Amino acid sequence: MPRFSQSARGMRSSEIRRLMAFAADPSIISFSGGMPAASLLPTQVIDELYGSLSLEAKQAALQYGPTSGYPPLLASLTEYLRSKGLPFEGQSLIITTGAQQAINLLSKTLLDPGDVVVSENPSFIGALAAFLSYGASMAAAPLDDNGIVIDELKKVLDANRSRAKMVYLNPSFQNPAGIIYSEVRRREVLEALAGRDICLLEDDPYGELYFDERDRPLTVPLKAMAAAGEPVCYAGSFSKIFGPGLRLGWLLGPAEIVEKCELAKQSMDACSSTFTQVLAHEYLRTGRLPLYLATVRAAYARRATIMLDALAAEMPSPVTWTRPKGGFYVWVTMPESLDASAVFAEALKSRAAFVTGSGFDPYGVKKNCFRLAFAHTPEEKIAEGIRIVAAAVRSIL
Amino acid sequence: MPRFSQSARGMRSSEIRRLMAFAADPSIISFSGGMPAASLLPTQVIDELYGSLSLEAKQAALQYGPTSGYPPLLASLTEYLRSKGLPFEGQSLIITTGAQQAINLLSKTLLDPGDVVVSENPSFIGALAAFLSYGASMAAAPLDDNGIVIDELKKVLDANRSRAKMVYLNPSFQNPAGIIYSEVRRREVLEALAGRDICLLEDDPYGELYFDERDRPLTVPLKAMAAAGEPVCYAGSFSKIFGPGLRLGWLLGPAEIVEKCELAKQSMDACSSTFTQVLAHEYLRTGRLPLYLATVRAAYARRATIMLDALAAEMPSPVTWTRPKGGFYVWVTMPESLDASAVFAEALKSRAAFVTGSGFDPYGVKKNCFRLAFAHTPEEKIAEGIRIVAAAVRSIL
Repeated sequence: MPRFSQSARGMRSSEIRRLMAFAADPSIISFSGGMPAASLLPTQVIDELYGSLSLEAKQAALQYGPTSGYPPLLASLTEYLRSKGLPFEGQSLIITTGAQQAINLLSKTLLDPGDVVVSENPSFIGALAAFLSYGASMAAAPLDDNGIVIDELKKVLDANRSRAKMVYLNPSFQNPAGIIYSEVRRREVLEALAGRDICLLEDDPYGELYFDERDRPLTVPLKAMAAAGEPVCYAGSFSKIFGPGLRLGWLLGPAEIVEKCELAKQSMDACSSTFTQVLAHEYLRTGRLPLYLATVRAAYARRATIMLDALAAEMPSPVTWTRPKGGFYVWVTMPESLDASAVFAEALKSRAAFVTGSGFDPYGVKKNCFRLAFAHTPEEKIAEGIRIVAAAVRSIL
Repeated sequence: MPRFSQSARGMRSSEIRRLMAFAADPSIISFSGGMPAASLLPTQVIDELYGSLSLEAKQAALQYGPTSGYPPLLASLTEYLRSKGLPFEGQSLIITTGAQQAINLLSKTLLDPGDVVVSENPSFIGALAAFLSYGASMAAAPLDDNGIVIDELKKVLDANRSRAKMVYLNPSFQNPAGIIYSEVRRREVLEALAGRDICLLEDDPYGELYFDERDRPLTVPLKAMAAAGEPVCYAGSFSKIFGPGLRLGWLLGPAEIVEKCELAKQSMDACSSTFTQVLAHEYLRTGRLPLYLATVRAAYARRATIMLDALAAEMPSPVTWTRPKGGFYVWVTMPESLDASAVFAEALKSRAAFVTGSGFDPYGVKKNCFRLAFAHTPEEKIAEGIRIVAAAVRSIL
């Protein structure tokens, strides 16, 4: 058997298979995977969109498309992103196979073994896996309720001045912590990075999923606030605003960087599915997105409320958790001496599942936290599931 | 602006954008891109398949799936591959985002900078781009009408004994040469590789596209002939047997290798489009593949015959070309002193396009060859296009 590459020897599993198995098992109350509820997926909209396609659109859907994306989708997506205040001057936009591929392409384009990526702690497990697969080392700064702790971020940046190539942030309804950066914190992040020549990758799959219209101004992307000329890349996704199965995301950033990513994509998958790009274009063009968002914002808000109420009622006092204003996640912190994997084992006996926190720790060591996803759990099961999880916590206290 | 990675600095464009533009321009007779004709894409079949989906299938189509693939598709694809004689004992199968991703995943899993990939000369431009993007060096052996020249292959393997990690071959209707390996040559390749501990990647997107049923036995994959335990990986694709826009391919190989590729895929795009996987499963399950193949085999055979007849009538005598028994391509070789890019420039003035050969040369130096794709060119335009190309050749002779 041939020897594996350095990259393959260092690969870390994000345990997608295991998380999906929990979510698919009806005998388990799952707070595990970061996926929309099946019942909320817009199957009827897809029926209507597919039914309205012309023969030419269907032929285009079955054919190769340009690596950068299906041109009509690039146009309708540009219009949508402009409406969110995102800049296009000197920038390029490409369609990617999920935001995961946007993260991977930028990693391939920027990272050599030994380079450092600075992230939040905790951070998105799929992004960490991508960075590590290119031989990067992680350095992280903690979060508080308003975002990454600026003094800690500066310390980490200063300590890695020569090796830091990228800062990876997920400012709106962060995965896994569920928090959203305040406007002040966003400005402080941009100030801390100004002039450092480090690429900021802003990952924003959840920004549209605020629960209360009054919180909308909080979701303005860093990319929309950054000074022109700063190397800020913005990754987004159709997964949470249409359907993950389409495997469509995007990367918007300085033309010089995004064109290298496009080159990397040529030999990664040639192009993303034209079939699903044609549907995504129709979805944007016909104004279905705002209608769908209105439905899911309300549904996720109800689920979050049920979960937060149940946590307040059930969870023993030394345990704390975040109170999300949007997105999919609540992040639970236990006293440092406790191990979330023991809670997990106990909860699973009573048929409830979640994700232990160590995978989200860029250093892979922190054991006392875990993530509860409320987005795919049926409303009527959430309180019961939280009772099981809280009982499991009490049993190891 | 941050510094690009070593990988990004070495990236080579496969010029997809340029090739697609030629193919999309109705004023140009295009022999450029390796794509099916739009009129041959099975849009009506897709209508029927989509129309027959249950609500559960539509929900699955919009949801994340396991990284390894949508389980029903893995099952139906396994049945199809078994019917082609491919082995499953000790092997794993994953769905990839086109065969291009299968090539990329195996490269990521096996190749470190400085490793050598041995290929045919000429070889598939997209595979070369993937190998080079991981810092590999290329070493190549020439083709004759029956496959890779065995003595040259052995020489190259011996000369790179410590650094060769992978051999990349495209034995059936090779891209770009159009030739198919004889059964004898296939056995000789396996003998030459036996015991060397080098991974053989067999890329087989065109094997089903033989023009004459009597040539079918020639298409038996190397993977089906190899001794158990040899590290042979088999990549295939739905692009040429269903539609490229689905972006679905696969990788079958030793479990240990393919499971590493699955891990790499987790952080590359999480999973391939579930939406198109659901459709591909229905396509296989309902027996549409053999019906579609019967149609396209006949259509591509007619196009190839028209092209070969026109070449025989028009091309000046010092020029030679291959006579494909299947697939998409004819490979044209001019006297060594001639430069295909001059022919290209001349032909384009009269509105005909093809792909010059230097991109297919693993060393990037050979200038006297070019590739003619007949698969996407309307039948009634082929003879006229060849007249333009032949006139361009004569003008620089």
